[in-house]
Amino acid sequence: MSDKTSNQMWGGRFAAGPDAIMEAINASIGFDKRLAAQDIAGSRAHAAMLAATGIISDNDAKVIREGLLTVLSEIEAGEFTFSTALEDIHMNVEARLKEIVGEPAGRLHTARSRNDQVATDFKLWTRDQFDAFESGLLALITALVDQADRGADWVMPGFTHLQTAQPVTWGHHMMAYVEMFARDLSRVRDARKRMNESPLGAAALAGTGFAIDRHMTAEALGFDRPAANSLDAVSDRDFALEFLSVASICAMHLSRFAEELVIWSSAQFRFVVLSDRFSTGSSIMPQKKNPDAAELIRAKIGRIFGANVALMTVMKGLPLAYSKDMQEDKEQVFDAADNLMIALAAMEGMVKDMNANVPALEAAASAGFSTATDLADWLVRETGLPFREAHHVTGALVAMAESKGCDLPDLSLEDMQTVSPAITAGIHDVLGVHNSVASRLSHGGTAPVRVREQVARWKEILA
Amino acid sequence: MSDKTSNQMWGGRFAAGPDAIMEAINASIGFDKRLAAQDIAGSRAHAAMLAATGIISDNDAKVIREGLLTVLSEIEAGEFTFSTALEDIHMNVEARLKEIVGEPAGRLHTARSRNDQVATDFKLWTRDQFDAFESGLLALITALVDQADRGADWVMPGFTHLQTAQPVTWGHHMMAYVEMFARDLSRVRDARKRMNESPLGAAALAGTGFAIDRHMTAEALGFDRPAANSLDAVSDRDFALEFLSVASICAMHLSRFAEELVIWSSAQFRFVVLSDRFSTGSSIMPQKKNPDAAELIRAKIGRIFGANVALMTVMKGLPLAYSKDMQEDKEQVFDAADNLMIALAAMEGMVKDMNANVPALEAAASAGFSTATDLADWLVRETGLPFREAHHVTGALVAMAESKGCDLPDLSLEDMQTVSPAITAGIHDVLGVHNSVASRLSHGGTAPVRVREQVARWKEILA
Amino acid sequence: MSDKTSNQMWGGRFAAGPDAIMEAINASIGFDKRLAAQDIAGSRAHAAMLAATGIISDNDAKVIREGLLTVLSEIEAGEFTFSTALEDIHMNVEARLKEIVGEPAGRLHTARSRNDQVATDFKLWTRDQFDAFESGLLALITALVDQADRGADWVMPGFTHLQTAQPVTWGHHMMAYVEMFARDLSRVRDARKRMNESPLGAAALAGTGFAIDRHMTAEALGFDRPAANSLDAVSDRDFALEFLSVASICAMHLSRFAEELVIWSSAQFRFVVLSDRFSTGSSIMPQKKNPDAAELIRAKIGRIFGANVALMTVMKGLPLAYSKDMQEDKEQVFDAADNLMIALAAMEGMVKDMNANVPALEAAASAGFSTATDLADWLVRETGLPFREAHHVTGALVAMAESKGCDLPDLSLEDMQTVSPAITAGIHDVLGVHNSVASRLSHGGTAPVRVREQVARWKEILA
Amino acid sequence: MSDKTSNQMWGGRFAAGPDAIMEAINASIGFDKRLAAQDIAGSRAHAAMLAATGIISDNDAKVIREGLLTVLSEIEAGEFTFSTALEDIHMNVEARLKEIVGEPAGRLHTARSRNDQVATDFKLWTRDQFDAFESGLLALITALVDQADRGADWVMPGFTHLQTAQPVTWGHHMMAYVEMFARDLSRVRDARKRMNESPLGAAALAGTGFAIDRHMTAEALGFDRPAANSLDAVSDRDFALEFLSVASICAMHLSRFAEELVIWSSAQFRFVVLSDRFSTGSSIMPQKKNPDAAELIRAKIGRIFGANVALMTVMKGLPLAYSKDMQEDKEQVFDAADNLMIALAAMEGMVKDMNANVPALEAAASAGFSTATDLADWLVRETGLPFREAHHVTGALVAMAESKGCDLPDLSLEDMQTVSPAITAGIHDVLGVHNSVASRLSHGGTAPVRVREQVARWKEILA
Repeated sequence: MSDKTSNQMWGGRFAAGPDAIMEAINASIGFDKRLAAQDIAGSRAHAAMLAATGIISDNDAKVIREGLLTVLSEIEAGEFTFSTALEDIHMNVEARLKEIVGEPAGRLHTARSRNDQVATDFKLWTRDQFDAFESGLLALITALVDQADRGADWVMPGFTHLQTAQPVTWGHHMMAYVEMFARDLSRVRDARKRMNESPLGAAALAGTGFAIDRHMTAEALGFDRPAANSLDAVSDRDFALEFLSVASICAMHLSRFAEELVIWSSAQFRFVVLSDRFSTGSSIMPQKKNPDAAELIRAKIGRIFGANVALMTVMKGLPLAYSKDMQEDKEQVFDAADNLMIALAAMEGMVKDMNANVPALEAAASAGFSTATDLADWLVRETGLPFREAHHVTGALVAMAESKGCDLPDLSLEDMQTVSPAITAGIHDVLGVHNSVASRLSHGGTAPVRVREQVARWKEILA
Repeated sequence: MSDKTSNQMWGGRFAAGPDAIMEAINASIGFDKRLAAQDIAGSRAHAAMLAATGIISDNDAKVIREGLLTVLSEIEAGEFTFSTALEDIHMNVEARLKEIVGEPAGRLHTARSRNDQVATDFKLWTRDQFDAFESGLLALITALVDQADRGADWVMPGFTHLQTAQPVTWGHHMMAYVEMFARDLSRVRDARKRMNESPLGAAALAGTGFAIDRHMTAEALGFDRPAANSLDAVSDRDFALEFLSVASICAMHLSRFAEELVIWSSAQFRFVVLSDRFSTGSSIMPQKKNPDAAELIRAKIGRIFGANVALMTVMKGLPLAYSKDMQEDKEQVFDAADNLMIALAAMEGMVKDMNANVPALEAAASAGFSTATDLADWLVRETGLPFREAHHVTGALVAMAESKGCDLPDLSLEDMQTVSPAITAGIHDVLGVHNSVASRLSHGGTAPVRVREQVARWKEILA
Repeated sequence: MSDKTSNQMWGGRFAAGPDAIMEAINASIGFDKRLAAQDIAGSRAHAAMLAATGIISDNDAKVIREGLLTVLSEIEAGEFTFSTALEDIHMNVEARLKEIVGEPAGRLHTARSRNDQVATDFKLWTRDQFDAFESGLLALITALVDQADRGADWVMPGFTHLQTAQPVTWGHHMMAYVEMFARDLSRVRDARKRMNESPLGAAALAGTGFAIDRHMTAEALGFDRPAANSLDAVSDRDFALEFLSVASICAMHLSRFAEELVIWSSAQFRFVVLSDRFSTGSSIMPQKKNPDAAELIRAKIGRIFGANVALMTVMKGLPLAYSKDMQEDKEQVFDAADNLMIALAAMEGMVKDMNANVPALEAAASAGFSTATDLADWLVRETGLPFREAHHVTGALVAMAESKGCDLPDLSLEDMQTVSPAITAGIHDVLGVHNSVASRLSHGGTAPVRVREQVARWKEILA
Repeated sequence: MSDKTSNQMWGGRFAAGPDAIMEAINASIGFDKRLAAQDIAGSRAHAAMLAATGIISDNDAKVIREGLLTVLSEIEAGEFTFSTALEDIHMNVEARLKEIVGEPAGRLHTARSRNDQVATDFKLWTRDQFDAFESGLLALITALVDQADRGADWVMPGFTHLQTAQPVTWGHHMMAYVEMFARDLSRVRDARKRMNESPLGAAALAGTGFAIDRHMTAEALGFDRPAANSLDAVSDRDFALEFLSVASICAMHLSRFAEELVIWSSAQFRFVVLSDRFSTGSSIMPQKKNPDAAELIRAKIGRIFGANVALMTVMKGLPLAYSKDMQEDKEQVFDAADNLMIALAAMEGMVKDMNANVPALEAAASAGFSTATDLADWLVRETGLPFREAHHVTGALVAMAESKGCDLPDLSLEDMQTVSPAITAGIHDVLGVHNSVASRLSHGGTAPVRVREQVARWKEILA
């Protein structure tokens, strides 16, 4: 590997070399080596185009393109020595290429700049992450739909304020998360489509006087088109910010489900049993089975949204076009993407493996006067009371049950009639939790038949 | 206006009334009164649907719908007294409706809950903001395209690192921002489409046993469809977070342009003269003309992205379905939307009014060896030097010019040939800034002809 | 009230007046009127100093100082009409002063600028908030110490990962929050001391040629000293950022306790009963008693930390000295302070009113093999097993109990000895929860005697 | 090195081993190996205390303490193989200790838990960072004071809104940053003192029944005292959040100075020449000399404050005591500390090396009617005009000068008298920039004599 320094590559002008501090703050090779495959793909496309447009010879292009494959195989085999003195992945690759192919290597950088090169590399990498994001979401949605399918009619408490509100079905609860992750999926697809424009050929910032063909390189790299403005092409990091924004909202959804799993795993709830595969023990308390994976997933919103804050702060107030500040973009997206993907995979694994405690769910659903709304609705439907009055009658019945230490179905008809003489024996038909959920047939409601429709719809989508 | 307290509306169960602290932290009427029109529109659609499905009588619906119009007119006329004791806009409107129409008012809340009601209101309000956002972006883009049209061939320095890099055109620089705001526009449209599903009829969280028609209310309120899962419908705030995310990226773009305007307005740059309409003076320094509007626009990313952080933090780890934490959603979106709209309008106004200092721009573009890249490219094209060697030759010529205190075009052919004998007289053709920009004809490049193509494309889009 | 516009006050230089957009984005009077009392106090101190140093006459100072009191009383009585055209509180007050006292009003602004004036006003306001913050913390700590005093020996489960880990005492848990809020208190005091330097007299940015006495105004306004550098004095907003940072950490503490209260209030936990004063009902589910105050407190970290992000983002990269961006400082601190104070007060109220469900706490503490660590520790102490081996033995015993469906104390000695023959009858002494907590006598441990020591220490501090 | 897995260490209870996803999300050894020295120091202090209190034998303690030194030397020599299966640094060290010393290793974990162990390790590491932070600030302040000393009377424009406001001195500007970094220093010292309490001995969360001596381990590790509440000790991460908060404000200060350096290095300003050591060239534009270090420093606020957001988000709403979410704390602080230290060092290096362009600074200070305030002040002092009227007169004179294309000192006395007959020849004494700065003698003002006083004061502090 070359011991040439990057300073030697661009630096004829400088009297003094950068010292250790500068090298430490300036070099990006420590992280941008992750862009090696993208950098080489970009350079190969660029070389082919330079030959096709007659800017370099076909032979030079052939030699360069083959040399780049050699560099790539060295990197993939772990045989490549990255040099901090050469600053970044672009310089490292080009220096090695020169060692391999000699003089033609010096022609590769014609009609481009590190500014459009790094934008291209980073976009290609981020595009791959959008694809991985999509896959992760689809796998998680599949696992949720399967849980919903299994438990379309298992009854559980629906909470508001973590207080039992009304009975719902397990399947309905799972499908709520399907809706959330489906919106994430929709955002991923929109963002991926929006960002798929090629910066390559924008050169430093102004375009180039060489008669390049940006459509050719765009197509070779899978872009939909070349970016329309060269200044924008090199100074745009919207694609990274949008990745982080979309990832943050998804991480928020994950945090909500993870919170539920932590609470549901408590001794007090026992709604769900997480598999040992996603739990750990304690070094001091042998009896513990801790929902570590759920907790770590819950926490991931921190670093993912933190990365969003970091890059947004970096970009604030930067004049056009490229500023070195923008070098801070990559580590944030790398870290956020890595953590998002592992969080999605871990959540998928947990959802697949987890077992609902069906009897505990039903018992909890039945407690706490959970069918009070059904009672109020019955009063409206059967006795014609306005809802607000029915609500008051129900409140009085709940208070009566509470004072007697029983639940609503345990009140006698006579007791009920002391509150509202219009109540008839039929009222007991609506007070059971299975009756309750079965009755909620409105579009999007929790009735098992509605849940099964949604499950079927999603199975078709996922097929 | 009623002196009934909200506590009286839901509170038969409670022994003690909420005290002053609780009222202060709990009541939302101080801000959610901005949702009055949306709340009334939602209730009117709901009442019509309840009648159409036979849940309430046609006459009740008619009375309710007319009464609601009366309430709306009172609010719009400023004659409505909002009551903190009644907590929120929903209770305030309903209490007043009861005063106006009596008993039928109590039937309005059948088959719905405050949870789906507030989600509907807030979505309708946010949807309007997406529309205003779109209008603001289109107006700003129009102003930028007009500037680009005027100055398609004005030469200015293209900066990287705020150092003169290469000459570009004013029009090209303006069109870079058009690309940015066009991506914002694209995000706004995607988000607006994604969020356009109706929560109404999700009721508290589980749907309802009343045979409601959610498609009817969705259509009446301009939604594309009812939301597919009632639990999700009441606990989803993605639309607000996506508004804030999209607004934040746009605010970042605004901050970059604002930063440029502040720098360009300095005595040292003098690239642009902002109109007096968007500047202010100093209380102590009479000579000052401060770019206040630009500075304030630059700052707006703070509160807009701060709102994004605020709501994301609130939503982190919330179990389903509704939790009271979510009441913190509205003020953030209200403040962000208000500030975004004023920032877009102020930027549009500044862009329309500002005057480029064309001679200063051209003088700056000509200084600083700005055509060094053109020289290097000429060496590659005309002498066949590999780019990396041409780069070194150019560096030596820049050093020579610097030591002589002149610019590149001022070097004699003889001097140049001491560095590289292959240089011929033709080299002087590429060293002028007008030659430089005219030569950058690559797709998306800064050449005036390319800029005019983009201007024409955008005029067609905006037409 | 004057109809003079601020433009008329500083604007002889301008041809055109600011239009509606500019007025909307530029004016701060909508929020900085909250600084009225501070502004007038600062001006009164300034006028007295100007007279003491002979810069204005004693009579002018007297007239100005009395006039300012009149303005203040008008504002406090709600009789003052604030004018947006006059931009800010400084101009509004000065314009009204001129109406009242005439020509001397024009001498008040000698040797100062709006830049040092607003810094002074805002610092005085923020200093008051530090004082209110301190009071709120002390009140909350008092309420927590009282709870700890009452329940120093009530046993409850100590959780890690929301899994029962070891028994602890209610008092110990309450005192953990005392430690947290005590650190907040320490931060408040440090920050308040650090910020207490007077900007007044820094003038626009460079100081002044008038022979002012900055120590005199500093003392009059309760500052410890004048700020040492005039450029810094007008461009410093550290005091606001530090307020927001300290408030954010405190809000985080509040969010943790609020989360516990929400979970503890669930039907599944029933660890605590919140008073009706800090709960609300449901519009549709009459049986609900929702911990709204706890949820809202939990959410407050969002807007408080969001404000921190907002102001940090605004300050990023601002050149010295004053830039108009900094006008965005006040609303963030106003909103954060208001919400912090109400959150502290609501938490204090909840803590005072809440009732621990002592039997439920003890039952939960006894379940879940919570004394397994005590068992392992016994094995180490009594049998000399290394801890790691004792941990394995305990794990086997827990597994045995789990398979038998019983708890650790229910295992017979014979059963236990099949796992480890060294176990003797004495082991049952350490398995009860009261034994467990009483034994944890290490400094800072959960034993009631330790908790009472801490309570006593704090009662002395608070006395 | 052991192939035992951590699962084997705590996991007798589990049927299934964690799979690859779980290992990937759960293991912390990839980053917490940075805590090796702290972990070993903590364990050595713990072992000594266990022997001193008779909990383990003196010989076991001796063997453990020596074995730990061996492990440390292996780690420092790079000869230690970290195992992901062993999860974290604590398990890695203990497993290796067992290989070296055998059975006594199993006694080390007596009376502690990973919860207090990791809190201790991380606190010790963070405390070292506070110390490094302090050193970095002192070095930077020294460099700034030296610059101020050199240029106490160099005149430069003082800007507000990036518009020339009044002349100031270079030394005054440098000393403004000294004030900022001095506040950072003060915050660092306060925070370091506040956090210096030992968690060790809090055990899992409840303290321990072993008769340990927490004061002894606290003293051995340099803590001021043991933490007073064991629940708080293991769940507190305030010290990390306060580090990030303090670092963020410092990074904001750095971003402001860095922004100035970038602007000052532009061809339009040329106020300063940065050394080649802290600049880089361009791969395509040989003439460029980019202020990369300044730009990177400007950007660092992004990741440092992003880390603050990340950890604050993680901590939001976590119930006591330890939750696995808190494992996300370390990487944020590691990254923020690393980047803060390099930013401080790079800024110190730049400040030391940079050369002010004194003639350019003076020329800029003299332009733009920068002494208009001096003129207005003269009118107040010499003619008795109220300030507000003097301000109007000055505005008219500036407008006159502007229309004549000259500066204020170039106006003839006659011209001036057409605006205000009271003006006399003496006015020209205050219009030069050196006169202006020399006159600003107020405390904290920009006069060279005042700057030299501040320099002297700081040299004494730094001595």
